[in-house]
Amino acid sequence: MRNSTVGLGVVGLGMAGGAMVAAVGTHPGVRLVAAADPNQALRARFEAGEGLPAYADLDTLLADPAVDAVYLASPHQFHHQQALAAARAGKHIVVEKPMALALDECDQMIEAADRAGVALVVGHTHGFDPAVMLIRELVASGAYGTLSMIAQWNYTNFLYRPRRPEELDTARGGGILYNQIPHQVEIARTIAARPVRSVRATTAVLDPQRPTEGSCTAILEFEDNVSASMVYSGYDHYDTDELHGWIAEGGGPKNPSHGSARRALRQQEGEAERQARTENFGYGNWSAELPPHQPHFGELIVSCAKADIRCGADDVVVYTEAGVERVPIPARPWRPGRGDVLEELAGYLTDSRPLVHDGHFGRETLRVCLAIKQSAAEHRGLELIEREADSYV
Amino acid sequence: MRNSTVGLGVVGLGMAGGAMVAAVGTHPGVRLVAAADPNQALRARFEAGEGLPAYADLDTLLADPAVDAVYLASPHQFHHQQALAAARAGKHIVVEKPMALALDECDQMIEAADRAGVALVVGHTHGFDPAVMLIRELVASGAYGTLSMIAQWNYTNFLYRPRRPEELDTARGGGILYNQIPHQVEIARTIAARPVRSVRATTAVLDPQRPTEGSCTAILEFEDNVSASMVYSGYDHYDTDELHGWIAEGGGPKNPSHGSARRALRQQEGEAERQARTENFGYGNWSAELPPHQPHFGELIVSCAKADIRCGADDVVVYTEAGVERVPIPARPWRPGRGDVLEELAGYLTDSRPLVHDGHFGRETLRVCLAIKQSAAEHRGLELIEREADSYV
Repeated sequence: MRNSTVGLGVVGLGMAGGAMVAAVGTHPGVRLVAAADPNQALRARFEAGEGLPAYADLDTLLADPAVDAVYLASPHQFHHQQALAAARAGKHIVVEKPMALALDECDQMIEAADRAGVALVVGHTHGFDPAVMLIRELVASGAYGTLSMIAQWNYTNFLYRPRRPEELDTARGGGILYNQIPHQVEIARTIAARPVRSVRATTAVLDPQRPTEGSCTAILEFEDNVSASMVYSGYDHYDTDELHGWIAEGGGPKNPSHGSARRALRQQEGEAERQARTENFGYGNWSAELPPHQPHFGELIVSCAKADIRCGADDVVVYTEAGVERVPIPARPWRPGRGDVLEELAGYLTDSRPLVHDGHFGRETLRVCLAIKQSAAEHRGLELIEREADSYV
Repeated sequence: MRNSTVGLGVVGLGMAGGAMVAAVGTHPGVRLVAAADPNQALRARFEAGEGLPAYADLDTLLADPAVDAVYLASPHQFHHQQALAAARAGKHIVVEKPMALALDECDQMIEAADRAGVALVVGHTHGFDPAVMLIRELVASGAYGTLSMIAQWNYTNFLYRPRRPEELDTARGGGILYNQIPHQVEIARTIAARPVRSVRATTAVLDPQRPTEGSCTAILEFEDNVSASMVYSGYDHYDTDELHGWIAEGGGPKNPSHGSARRALRQQEGEAERQARTENFGYGNWSAELPPHQPHFGELIVSCAKADIRCGADDVVVYTEAGVERVPIPARPWRPGRGDVLEELAGYLTDSRPLVHDGHFGRETLRVCLAIKQSAAEHRGLELIEREADSYV
């Protein structure tokens, strides 16, 4: 590693890639070196804004010797092949969730990374959030007794943000099951820190104009009678950030805005929506400034025998028999979320710290999400018998 | 019916009976005529306070010709036999939830009431709440599109209120499965207005000093892909009334009080706790004054294709693409909750309005609660195939 920092190439300059560029700027151990995107306008914006090369295709980026690691933020259906190509080129890999669209694709990615001796990190999800990691530690400390229930509610406008066609097509990784439920699953898995034993879920497709799953209820039962209850709706009616002091998911301020994404979308049709997606959410819309509050993903209540624990605006709140205690979040110099992904990669490469959110972890999250999809389709619970891949304990 | 009002005898002067006495005073169609309770002190309090007879046993009350109907608020294990006795005596019956502890007991109660030609009403639960009934009507109107999800969270101090021993013994109808989950089940059933198709649940017993179910997560799947997600904890840590402007379940004001029920209980042991139950929650602790806000049971979000609908402090809040609309609750002259039970009875007896919360309805709620218990014990989902009893559509 030259300069003992990791040279990162960002593949895909849409929303996730744009946010990652902003996060790289906050992390001392990683430096941005290049990007790749088929969209010429985004490339031009990136080159002008960063003074770094933006390539039209992945192979050219992989041939750039300044690139030590790639961040794959391309449409999900490309993650699998792009990860295999990156491994062949000897590049470390950070791949956005969902890791891929099928479990055998995940297996091939894990095998390719192992064979090439490169790191494979999956994320960001809100399972990396500072509050979630702190709650994980508080639970693991045993100070609050046995873990029992993890409850999550998130009502957002997810489905009504401007979208590319594949983002509204479940078969190509669209809808909440591949894009939002992984957050809830990883929050639960991070805190439960044990294998998922069974899944029961229901899903709904409520808008024929956006024919992909937009809402979901699920129960994950973990080992040792630990359960996670999750409700998600992306239909832009109620917004649970009303319960969170109108702080946005990323930690910034938010205007009360029930229904506003739906109303805005009425002004756009077809190609205009696709354009709006790139213009308003792609590279160039993301500030390197740290947000005033911590990130969160709806409301979260974790119940142990001796305490309930919630994610607050700036802290973690613990409710015990003694009363209410506020536990501060440890300060980090980098932007939470994607900055934590970079820290995991950098810690592994420079300090040999073990990866947590590795390929096996990402594969297990996909497995749970696919089980949610199947449980809802078949109107029954599913046992998750296969266990060996579930190493996050 | 003399004076065209219904003469009500209250059986059991504990918490439910005490609250019912207060509710009777607000309802124009029902008048209190007597009570029965084995506890001499409660009887004396009632006779002094109401100027009405309080009997030591049920048979004497059933022999009182002023009694047209009984309200059975005795410990749950007595509901079954007492309802059969009341039917034999030709008295109409209102029985507190749970209707009984087993389905065959419910069958016998239904049959006995039918044979005697007396009304059988089961409740109160929060399924009668004005906001729940209004949401049911809003959903049924079709104005907001297809019903999809019903989400409920309730975190209370239920398990740490002073208790009689049987209230902490699941086999005798103690714990949340017989006493709190019926509220969530009936709220969901009232709004869904269709049969429950399957149940998946987890439960927990977290305090060896109070060895009965204190928390639960469940998904009920109804016909037509309608689902209800429920989380309940009675462990007195977090309190969801924090999300509801610190309004108590009944509609009165509430002090922020995390953990205070647990702390108060530390001052009491054995017989002292039993005494506190009677003294602080039985007859004499319930005012006839109408509370300032409507009743509620934790947080409730109902999702249709075109709206999310929530229960507010004094109204129902509808979130659509157009924005936020507040729908006022229709005014009623009687105390919501148990007053609505009385209205259902009086409407049936004087105006021949059909019963909604009849024996079949109460039996189905018990059936769902027993399925929740079994699903949690067996760590799997349960199909509820038997359908004929489920008439609330």
